[in-house]
Amino acid sequence: VLRDVILAWLGRADIRGASALIGWFRPTHGGIAWEPLAGRRALVTAGPTHEPVDPVRYLGNRSSGLQGYAIASALAALGARVTLVSGPVALADPAGVDVVRVETALEMERAVRAALPADIAVCAAAVADWRVDGVAGLKIKKQAGAPPPVLTLSPNPDLLAMLSAPGPERPALVVGFAAETDNVEANAVAKRTRKGCDWIVANDVSTGTNVMGGLDNRAILITRDGIEHWPLLAKTELARRLAERIAAWFEMPVMADGGDRV
Amino acid sequence: VLRDVILAWLGRADIRGASALIGWFRPTHGGIAWEPLAGRRALVTAGPTHEPVDPVRYLGNRSSGLQGYAIASALAALGARVTLVSGPVALADPAGVDVVRVETALEMERAVRAALPADIAVCAAAVADWRVDGVAGLKIKKQAGAPPPVLTLSPNPDLLAMLSAPGPERPALVVGFAAETDNVEANAVAKRTRKGCDWIVANDVSTGTNVMGGLDNRAILITRDGIEHWPLLAKTELARRLAERIAAWFEMPVMADGGDRV
Repeated sequence: VLRDVILAWLGRADIRGASALIGWFRPTHGGIAWEPLAGRRALVTAGPTHEPVDPVRYLGNRSSGLQGYAIASALAALGARVTLVSGPVALADPAGVDVVRVETALEMERAVRAALPADIAVCAAAVADWRVDGVAGLKIKKQAGAPPPVLTLSPNPDLLAMLSAPGPERPALVVGFAAETDNVEANAVAKRTRKGCDWIVANDVSTGTNVMGGLDNRAILITRDGIEHWPLLAKTELARRLAERIAAWFEMPVMADGGDRV
Repeated sequence: VLRDVILAWLGRADIRGASALIGWFRPTHGGIAWEPLAGRRALVTAGPTHEPVDPVRYLGNRSSGLQGYAIASALAALGARVTLVSGPVALADPAGVDVVRVETALEMERAVRAALPADIAVCAAAVADWRVDGVAGLKIKKQAGAPPPVLTLSPNPDLLAMLSAPGPERPALVVGFAAETDNVEANAVAKRTRKGCDWIVANDVSTGTNVMGGLDNRAILITRDGIEHWPLLAKTELARRLAERIAAWFEMPVMADGGDRV
């Protein structure tokens, strides 16, 4: 109904512009599903990775996967075909989403490559920057009198940079996340340029913010053209806003000079 | 009803011996609760500990907490007042159990001390043997060109040894767990002596056994007098057997010479 009102109001205006406007409203009005991302493929990563030290120990991080799962769900609700590559989390598969479960950053890299091509990539996983060298095949035992082991680390593949690199398989829109504990905005702006992604969703995950593992999130959306401070939102609501923003982006006309959409 | 039959059969035999026999049956018969541990206090630890590296990263292990939660529940079902000190897990509090949630081994140590005195201690938690030195207050950033960080470790307190040490607060029965990937039985027998605990429940947690994080468990029970190989059981069933075994132990007469019960 609202869609009809706006279309009527716009009269014979360009239908793509109208759709972009409608993109800011909820996906259903009067029970009619609105699926602006129908036909689009989306790849979402979520959760932590666990980097093994030995068969029982690992290096992990506090990502619950909630934000990424909510984004996968929100994109599917707008009609996208979604593959969710998930690290180890205690969440059920979202309805209507293909879920690929992995443990380590190397496994996540393989699963991400296998999920391409995609129109949209949202890298919400907290992929470990480093893995542990010389993973022990047997549990490392505490030895009386012996010093504790020292864990040396090696860099993991950078999935956001990989997906952002120019090439035939680059998704049209690559969205990264930045979990920061200091200088959130400046670090995130620098990260967008460094990684070559289109947007960055930046969060303050300092101790006490309760973002990692919590239900709410306060984000800063960084695009080529601007910085938006979003209010504190439930992660599901933040996901819906982001998904609708992504849908609207695909409705924007491509610049005649081949320039990028913002 | 079954209890009455057995009591009748035993005639005027020693009531404590009869109770010990009944200890092998299920806690309720004909809807009558059987609570041989009524008045006993039990302390159970469960789950992993997470040892922080920085505000978002930690060193963890694959314990799901299921076995410890099941044991706390089974002891409570037999009438014990149970305090469950739990590391970070994705499990709901068991009914009728006081749950204290902690993250690190040092926090678990404090919670365990606060839960004493207790008649029974079951250390099912996979407490990290080591914590990370020099925990960073801000998230460690990946720096272009800089080598990855090296994690040096320090020993954590040994909660099983602490609880097993002779003294006025030592629980009458201290049960430890041994998660092994090689020489399961020999390592567990040595662990019982080294720690000074009464019983060890030993598991093979090799990759592929699916014990850590799985629903089933195959245990070896090591006491002062013997080694019992238990079959593959659901963790809830293993917990019930262990709880009934603990109840039976308290029914055994103390040796006249002050010697230990086995």
